[in-house]
Amino acid sequence: MRRKEFTVDEQQEFEQFLGEVSFGFLGLTSEDGWPRVIPLNFAYGNGVFYMHGSRAGEKMQLLREDNKVTFSAAREYALIPSYFTDEEMACPATAFFKSVTVRGHAEVVTDLEEKAMALGIFMQKLQPEGGYDPITIEDPRYIPRLKGVALIKIIPDEWTAKFKFGQNVRGEEREQIISGLQQRGSADDLSTLEMMEKYCPYHQSASGATGKNTADDQDL
Amino acid sequence: MRRKEFTVDEQQEFEQFLGEVSFGFLGLTSEDGWPRVIPLNFAYGNGVFYMHGSRAGEKMQLLREDNKVTFSAAREYALIPSYFTDEEMACPATAFFKSVTVRGHAEVVTDLEEKAMALGIFMQKLQPEGGYDPITIEDPRYIPRLKGVALIKIIPDEWTAKFKFGQNVRGEEREQIISGLQQRGSADDLSTLEMMEKYCPYHQSASGATGKNTADDQDL
Repeated sequence: MRRKEFTVDEQQEFEQFLGEVSFGFLGLTSEDGWPRVIPLNFAYGNGVFYMHGSRAGEKMQLLREDNKVTFSAAREYALIPSYFTDEEMACPATAFFKSVTVRGHAEVVTDLEEKAMALGIFMQKLQPEGGYDPITIEDPRYIPRLKGVALIKIIPDEWTAKFKFGQNVRGEEREQIISGLQQRGSADDLSTLEMMEKYCPYHQSASGATGKNTADDQDL
Repeated sequence: MRRKEFTVDEQQEFEQFLGEVSFGFLGLTSEDGWPRVIPLNFAYGNGVFYMHGSRAGEKMQLLREDNKVTFSAAREYALIPSYFTDEEMACPATAFFKSVTVRGHAEVVTDLEEKAMALGIFMQKLQPEGGYDPITIEDPRYIPRLKGVALIKIIPDEWTAKFKFGQNVRGEEREQIISGLQQRGSADDLSTLEMMEKYCPYHQSASGATGKNTADDQDL
């Protein structure tokens, strides 16, 4: 398991990350013994995760039976090929990424005002350029749509996060990865270089140490 | 629930998609009642999904307790803003995407030859440009690494998939989305236009109809 106590700065970074990732995966338990894993667009705001679906959908039924859920979102920044650091062995091949996972309880939102507010957060995230009339219960055109949409909120009980950018890599190997990313030079590679510097144990204050390396180091 | 019987052509498309997505989310059940959702790099080959981790990792322990798992991978091609089709209402905002989800059983792979083969599939997928010596049990340098890595395979029992590219959108609205994507014109938008044509109900044979629209239409 990962560290579960985070600083205010770290929490802000997680929330910023959640604003940059348009979808995540909702994990539910079902009676047949198999977990459900459902990709969904989501928006985070007011301390909760919002996602919407059909009122008839299977996930709504599952949530009525068991509202303990897990939600995870991840972004892969860069695949790090083995030859950045080793000309022969495949073993160093890895990926640098951010992931944030919460465990919590899901609730179905029925209050129209909360629905309007939540869908507003959704639109601000996924259509920040605007181009629509504000979603409010004062606008009668929105009322039937607000009634029809099923909205879930997840109230997080516990956060875990992993921002993996080579924090455990030292010396020559680290320089080789930096050099490899610079030469490959994609936009994602340049973002990865920024993250490597940001999360480098030597460059950051103690309170900003988001990167963790655990026994589960192979997780994305 | 989605359709679960697929044609050979559709199955091939799913497998091609799995080759294009570097990571997915593994769903596990745990005794505390919360599902686990773990982002992981994966490779699909020989009809199974391979993923690797630390032998000490929590997921290995969970799998020993309950090997019924779900694995889901998704790619969002394009956010479709509401103003492509409606100048006032936010409601038409949606996303076009592909997702593939399997339910199956997980097994821990211990045979070194299978480990070498599976990690070879991994490398072919995630480092197709090569730059490493082949992973085989004939190479003594790889033996300790093969022994040390924990490898899981998921044997799928059931596939579901959703390729959503506006198959239910007709007439003027469809033309407006096409026009909007053309004008926005990112690389992903151009891929989305290809997918819209490929999966358009009017352009495809009955056997190729992968796109589905269900009550759960809001899922990614």
